[in-house]
Amino acid sequence: MDDPLAKLKNGTLKLYALEKELPPEEAVRVRRAYIEEETGADLAALGTFSIGIDRVVKRNIENMIGAVQVPVGVAGPLKVKGEYANGTYWIPLATTEGALVASANRGCSAITKAGGADVRIIKDGMTRAPVFAARDIVHAREIADWAAAHTADLAAAAEKTTARGKLLSITPYIVGTNVFLRCAYDTKDAMGMNMVTIATAEIADRVEAATGARLIALSGNMCTDKKPSAINMIEGRGKSVVAGVHLSNDLIETVLKTDAKTLAEVNYRKNLIGSVRAGALGFNAHAANIIAALYLACGQDAAHVVEGSSCITTIEATDDGAYVAVTLPAVQVGTVGGGTGIDTQAACLSLLGVAGGGEPEGANAKAFAEIVAAGVLAGELSLLGALAANHLARAHKELGRG
Amino acid sequence: MDDPLAKLKNGTLKLYALEKELPPEEAVRVRRAYIEEETGADLAALGTFSIGIDRVVKRNIENMIGAVQVPVGVAGPLKVKGEYANGTYWIPLATTEGALVASANRGCSAITKAGGADVRIIKDGMTRAPVFAARDIVHAREIADWAAAHTADLAAAAEKTTARGKLLSITPYIVGTNVFLRCAYDTKDAMGMNMVTIATAEIADRVEAATGARLIALSGNMCTDKKPSAINMIEGRGKSVVAGVHLSNDLIETVLKTDAKTLAEVNYRKNLIGSVRAGALGFNAHAANIIAALYLACGQDAAHVVEGSSCITTIEATDDGAYVAVTLPAVQVGTVGGGTGIDTQAACLSLLGVAGGGEPEGANAKAFAEIVAAGVLAGELSLLGALAANHLARAHKELGRG
Amino acid sequence: MDDPLAKLKNGTLKLYALEKELPPEEAVRVRRAYIEEETGADLAALGTFSIGIDRVVKRNIENMIGAVQVPVGVAGPLKVKGEYANGTYWIPLATTEGALVASANRGCSAITKAGGADVRIIKDGMTRAPVFAARDIVHAREIADWAAAHTADLAAAAEKTTARGKLLSITPYIVGTNVFLRCAYDTKDAMGMNMVTIATAEIADRVEAATGARLIALSGNMCTDKKPSAINMIEGRGKSVVAGVHLSNDLIETVLKTDAKTLAEVNYRKNLIGSVRAGALGFNAHAANIIAALYLACGQDAAHVVEGSSCITTIEATDDGAYVAVTLPAVQVGTVGGGTGIDTQAACLSLLGVAGGGEPEGANAKAFAEIVAAGVLAGELSLLGALAANHLARAHKELGRG
Amino acid sequence: MDDPLAKLKNGTLKLYALEKELPPEEAVRVRRAYIEEETGADLAALGTFSIGIDRVVKRNIENMIGAVQVPVGVAGPLKVKGEYANGTYWIPLATTEGALVASANRGCSAITKAGGADVRIIKDGMTRAPVFAARDIVHAREIADWAAAHTADLAAAAEKTTARGKLLSITPYIVGTNVFLRCAYDTKDAMGMNMVTIATAEIADRVEAATGARLIALSGNMCTDKKPSAINMIEGRGKSVVAGVHLSNDLIETVLKTDAKTLAEVNYRKNLIGSVRAGALGFNAHAANIIAALYLACGQDAAHVVEGSSCITTIEATDDGAYVAVTLPAVQVGTVGGGTGIDTQAACLSLLGVAGGGEPEGANAKAFAEIVAAGVLAGELSLLGALAANHLARAHKELGRG
Repeated sequence: MDDPLAKLKNGTLKLYALEKELPPEEAVRVRRAYIEEETGADLAALGTFSIGIDRVVKRNIENMIGAVQVPVGVAGPLKVKGEYANGTYWIPLATTEGALVASANRGCSAITKAGGADVRIIKDGMTRAPVFAARDIVHAREIADWAAAHTADLAAAAEKTTARGKLLSITPYIVGTNVFLRCAYDTKDAMGMNMVTIATAEIADRVEAATGARLIALSGNMCTDKKPSAINMIEGRGKSVVAGVHLSNDLIETVLKTDAKTLAEVNYRKNLIGSVRAGALGFNAHAANIIAALYLACGQDAAHVVEGSSCITTIEATDDGAYVAVTLPAVQVGTVGGGTGIDTQAACLSLLGVAGGGEPEGANAKAFAEIVAAGVLAGELSLLGALAANHLARAHKELGRG
Repeated sequence: MDDPLAKLKNGTLKLYALEKELPPEEAVRVRRAYIEEETGADLAALGTFSIGIDRVVKRNIENMIGAVQVPVGVAGPLKVKGEYANGTYWIPLATTEGALVASANRGCSAITKAGGADVRIIKDGMTRAPVFAARDIVHAREIADWAAAHTADLAAAAEKTTARGKLLSITPYIVGTNVFLRCAYDTKDAMGMNMVTIATAEIADRVEAATGARLIALSGNMCTDKKPSAINMIEGRGKSVVAGVHLSNDLIETVLKTDAKTLAEVNYRKNLIGSVRAGALGFNAHAANIIAALYLACGQDAAHVVEGSSCITTIEATDDGAYVAVTLPAVQVGTVGGGTGIDTQAACLSLLGVAGGGEPEGANAKAFAEIVAAGVLAGELSLLGALAANHLARAHKELGRG
Repeated sequence: MDDPLAKLKNGTLKLYALEKELPPEEAVRVRRAYIEEETGADLAALGTFSIGIDRVVKRNIENMIGAVQVPVGVAGPLKVKGEYANGTYWIPLATTEGALVASANRGCSAITKAGGADVRIIKDGMTRAPVFAARDIVHAREIADWAAAHTADLAAAAEKTTARGKLLSITPYIVGTNVFLRCAYDTKDAMGMNMVTIATAEIADRVEAATGARLIALSGNMCTDKKPSAINMIEGRGKSVVAGVHLSNDLIETVLKTDAKTLAEVNYRKNLIGSVRAGALGFNAHAANIIAALYLACGQDAAHVVEGSSCITTIEATDDGAYVAVTLPAVQVGTVGGGTGIDTQAACLSLLGVAGGGEPEGANAKAFAEIVAAGVLAGELSLLGALAANHLARAHKELGRG
Repeated sequence: MDDPLAKLKNGTLKLYALEKELPPEEAVRVRRAYIEEETGADLAALGTFSIGIDRVVKRNIENMIGAVQVPVGVAGPLKVKGEYANGTYWIPLATTEGALVASANRGCSAITKAGGADVRIIKDGMTRAPVFAARDIVHAREIADWAAAHTADLAAAAEKTTARGKLLSITPYIVGTNVFLRCAYDTKDAMGMNMVTIATAEIADRVEAATGARLIALSGNMCTDKKPSAINMIEGRGKSVVAGVHLSNDLIETVLKTDAKTLAEVNYRKNLIGSVRAGALGFNAHAANIIAALYLACGQDAAHVVEGSSCITTIEATDDGAYVAVTLPAVQVGTVGGGTGIDTQAACLSLLGVAGGGEPEGANAKAFAEIVAAGVLAGELSLLGALAANHLARAHKELGRG
């Protein structure tokens, strides 16, 4: 073909259309060159990548000009006692925040020495909540009632669009003339946003046809996707997971350099009272850090870090130590689809033994969610421990013991 | 030296200590090999990277085993009319969510055709809020009063720890025996979390010494860092930015394939009413997606995506079109420090013309924040436009049937 | 008997024990005299009351010294088109806030002229959520699972304590070692807090006995009673009610002195955007005012005004006017029990035709809830109309039309 | 005159106009008779009242048909160690919820035996936040900037409308094209809503004239009045008050029949964790109950109970007992104006020694706010103590100690 760069410049070729004219690597190279000329920036660094981009340009990105590289460290070994993840793991963390991996590592050490973290999934369902406009509030309730009365039919219609997804429930909410139908699905090993959107479109069609409701948007924000929300904190979205570990006084002293009472006090004053007065929807030290690093390493949707930050961390001093737990209402993860198939991300999933579809279906995504929760527990333990140790050190200094 | 892999296995060498024995590349290679043996996973993909890791292993990560590669696409040209970013930009988006770049691209097109997005920073201050324990509530108020009376002294002490940061204010909050001092700083071109933590430690020392307060944690969660919070939505954290554009009826029709009234209705029913009933702290379609992709490309802290999701999107139909705006109360970004210096991320910043320190100081971080807001506006416009167009199409279809 | 006042003074008689020694009227008189001596205050005004206090001192109050009188006005006629309340009502409002009754009155007029307010109850269930402590997170899920598996047995046990109440559902929530079981009941014509507390105690006993959970409190705040909460806004508590009315352009102009567009704009900028940025859980102009005045008049629990303020008011301009609606997720009312039997309060309920038990059971409380929602709609319409009219007047003045 | 009842019936006299034709008592009687005829209800009970209604019909109510009587009980003595209220009080509680006064009474006893409750006002300012529409976001920031630059002028204008109020601050907030100016005032002994509304109207006029902003509503919901809101919880509204008391182990055992650890655990699991998971804006057991009963007795605005429910209760076990505190960010009270002048309500205020204007101005309202906080503390102590005692009793029973 003629020089594609020239064609981009003279407008006869659209930037997004390069892949139609050239092989992917070439298209990316030409596009990058074009942007370099347009902006005067040197983008060579973006051009060095090894991931197989045939798949990437079809599924993961448009207008590709290269790749950023994010360093990956490991923390571990982390002993996890879940129902799906049961063993000792090295967790991959992609981050540029110095000290994060080291901190997680110390938390893993505390957990593993304590015999491992118990983890349980307490709810599982990916949601989509279309919003419909009703003529008036009488019509609104009719729509909600109709959907409730036809859930089985709607489920059948929805499930025709997906090989694996199952509709679990439809919960209606009304605000004036607005009707929201929050549809929850078992999406097996997929995070499932696309699956549930497509399936819910079928439901929406039928609701419209039968009731005269006007579909305004397939996502009416009561899903809630990628926004912090009380509904996700209360009712969950994706997998609701809880992880906990009992630390003996001895272990708290030797590994965390503090004591149970101080650890509990830091959590109480910072994670509970501080977050309460801030009007927060997250009650933790830095759950989002661990979530972000794990999601990024493992090809998850980075915007789902939002939901991870709703974590509630609880610490209670017990007779012989402390019980530390994290409650994560909305862990939205998958081991198939999305970014999970990109070479480097797939490697991180394989490091955890959860790459691809599970056996039975859904087992890998559930195992991954359990590991995520245990990882967040490690991060919380470490940071709260450090704060408590620092507080204790100051207290001792004041008392002249230092 | 002896075979380090053997030493790792027999426990005579700690995994994190490899960099002390070997050059960084070698240390990373050996660590990866060790983890491969431990887990049986093939991690070769992680081993192909080009970023200069001397700096990375010192500043950005521990226990490094390689890097993940995240594809980067560009959207643009995007015309931005800010006070710091004034021009036409190609915005780099690192994502694995197919269609995101294409969607942002369409939004950029609409904005640029409309003459560009106005952007203004309405507040700027990175915060840290230590929590102190008081003896009782009388003591609590004394602590708060003391801090208020000594703000100038505390500012002087804080600013000795930083070449560039300036203390802007200290706001006290009391909950029972808990005293929070929310300290806000101008951190110039740095995102500034480390800077403000170190500076605030000086303040905390003085408060403790003078008042007998017990410092519990340098971060008492009223900062609020990496948790969704009303305090950040109301009072802001980092840069509070607002971006807006007026779209003519013609442009809404030709580019977005919908009309002003429908666009406003979708925003009202979905982003406002839906989020309201969900108890959300975010009132937007998918701000977190754009924030995540831009932050990831440009070496920002991925956990700060949480705050980005607090965005409020507003659309009002006007006499001759629609005014669309996004309000982002907590954009926490920097162009120096953190992950901004890694080669690929630095390239993305340079693509925007905002790499490194600005002239005057702070100008680059401010320009970047303005571009972020304009980018989010593009993302909102595109997704809301698509929803509205779909709604309109259905409406027409129905009318065509009748 | 000996002079009781003297005995109070010398400590041989407890203040609360007066009713054991004297007839109620006398006990109240003596107690008031004692307090007058103690404080030097003249409390004669409190001593003039006509309500039959035999019942009051047994059921409604302790240590009674008299009564306050709250003026009651009427607003109406208000046409209500509910499923339980269907007709034209005069609503009694007990308030000391000047202009409130006049404002409600104007709203009633608008609604009635428009043909009446549609009202629907969309959910009904009074809740109590005990909190249990588990040994660890594994135990926590076992407790939740056990409760889910034994709901029928638990319902049977709970319903033995009440002649009328029916258990509707038990929803478990886990936070670390904390297990909450949100039990919802149909409480018929009673507001039902006492009923559900007693019934839930039976459930809690069985959960403790079977699972080893430790009951911490019969109310674990996920009920949520008398605190603003997202769970009540999302899932409802008591009766979730929605009321709406379509106003023609002509009516908006003649009664409210404004136009549909302005009315919708005021609601959008004030009740939605303002409340959103304030981090509010209420999206209305002054629902709490109407709720408070109606509750007070009708012997409801004044602390339940809290939940009333969670109201969401929506206004949409339509082709030929505006549709105005209020959504009240948590109307907690009864027509039997509590303060409903006091003479003056009973008179107000009888004014609405809903005093005492309904036919069938529950019909009176439901009718009352519908009237409450219609009353709130009247209040919103009137205040928003006034704001819109004022805005319009200013706009006209500026334009020189005034 | 002719028979007014007949004139009402034939429509020649409006119901609200009766006071123009007849003396107040007569007008009320005729109106009641008319409503009785209209509804068939017997409203005689409402007709027995003793409050002087000349003032009431002018200031407090329209369309009056009588009064409801709410029984008043006393709890006390309650020792308060505030800066304005310093002494021992009997607190008047108007309620129909049996056991409430008894419960408060027990809490008063615990506090007084412990030496009294410390109380401090930590912030004081009644707010009004008008919302303006800007042309675009550039204009929005101009409006905010203009207001900030002209605060002194605006204060002068505002204060011309009031003999006593002082403007304390104007805080601007922007959401897209919406500008909110949160104006805070010292309103002395008045609760001050009317005062600040009138004063803020002057500010709004000037902002409109100078900037071209369009005033949409004098209250833009960021005030926030009578809706639960994070802004009030974080920044306060009216008086922000904190009260605390240290209880010895002995006192906890003898008066509350529990121990410090159990008391703290109940508060932690119920008031903190339960409210957190419920997405609540209140973290207490039943603050709204005490607030409602005190407000009702003392002529406060019953709808302000909403804000009272935002209370945060904290309990920490100490070496020798427990420290219990309540933090009330938004106590909106006055001792002049509103319902404070009605005979029965004035008697209740005089019982507390805070009726009318204080010396210096504002001292009475502040003293009242301190008593409110101490009263809420009593209520919390009592209910939490009862829950803890019950839990302890169950625990002992299980252990065979019972």
